Amino acid sequence: MKTVILIGANGNMGQAALSGLGNHKVITAGRSSESYDHQVDITNEDSIRKLYKDVGQFDAVVNTVGVCEYANFTELTEEQWMSTVMSKMMVEINLVRIGQEYIADKGSFTLITGILNVKPIPMAIADATTSGAIDTFVRCISHEMPRGLRVHAVNPTVLEEAWDVYGEMMPGFQPVSGSLVGKVFERSVDGFITGQVLFVDA
Amino acid sequence: MKTVILIGANGNMGQAALSGLGNHKVITAGRSSESYDHQVDITNEDSIRKLYKDVGQFDAVVNTVGVCEYANFTELTEEQWMSTVMSKMMVEINLVRIGQEYIADKGSFTLITGILNVKPIPMAIADATTSGAIDTFVRCISHEMPRGLRVHAVNPTVLEEAWDVYGEMMPGFQPVSGSLVGKVFERSVDGFITGQVLFVDA
Repeated sequence: MKTVILIGANGNMGQAALSGLGNHKVITAGRSSESYDHQVDITNEDSIRKLYKDVGQFDAVVNTVGVCEYANFTELTEEQWMSTVMSKMMVEINLVRIGQEYIADKGSFTLITGILNVKPIPMAIADATTSGAIDTFVRCISHEMPRGLRVHAVNPTVLEEAWDVYGEMMPGFQPVSGSLVGKVFERSVDGFITGQVLFVDA
Repeated sequence: MKTVILIGANGNMGQAALSGLGNHKVITAGRSSESYDHQVDITNEDSIRKLYKDVGQFDAVVNTVGVCEYANFTELTEEQWMSTVMSKMMVEINLVRIGQEYIADKGSFTLITGILNVKPIPMAIADATTSGAIDTFVRCISHEMPRGLRVHAVNPTVLEEAWDVYGEMMPGFQPVSGSLVGKVFERSVDGFITGQVLFVDA
């Protein structure tokens, strides 16, 4: 049994991850102090550091949160780009960058990206670009992680549980179940491979 | 003959690009008003917009500039990350985002990335991650560009002309000539393909 910090457990992706982490002690963290074991603002470096210090001993960090702006490229403003860069890309880099100071030896970081960087659709260029950044980050940084630390990105297609929200944007996509995505989070936390983008697509 | 705005002509990569653009009318732009036809601060949205307005009619934009911070991941600060994100990644997105308002029909944008996102080396995670972002951006945005506009990234290995600076960081890499890289810039500007990462590696 490992101690896993799960960020964003209440969302669809968080629930998917949670379904795969049943063999572990899961500590939840998120924006609201009522809903989670720990309150954290992952866009704030000090708040991330406080989370890790407060939890103390942990073996894995699983992030399921990344907020993106969606618009046609010709209408997407610099502010919308920067919001996506800060809320998704830099958040995930910071979770690893700061977390490597606190996590146990041979611990793992599992980040979340999404299939739109390899299957582009309209309106999603900021999502796709930042997923491309994180997928690249994971593949490259694995060679440099100290103390046997591992790092992955889970890159799923749309979840069945989110199809009612995203399905209209994604004609011809086959959603996958949260439980299948949960298996991949489990494989990331429990395996010995590193530096992989773990695609979950149908 | 096309009118090409070349950003950063005086650097090694700019000279490489210039060597491939001999059949075109090249208008140079860069930070210093003495060295270039137009002065531009590409980290500033208003300055980019002024450049495009001042040039007026143009068929292609070629960027050869991207400033990165190099350090071990465990030592790279949030400030160094953000400097790289803003000076390389967001600059290139903004050159296309703003440029698509001004460039001629069927015009092209050629961005610059670098081989370290597919051949990682120590100290270069910010460079690699932002190259991954731009390579992904190019592949995805090509489907959405209006008016037949095209977009590519040139992703070269180290230049022979820069080997004295970077060679020590890059054992086992085979540098390529600036003139070969120039050919690829020419292919990007003169071809009809779009959405490609044009690798130049040996």
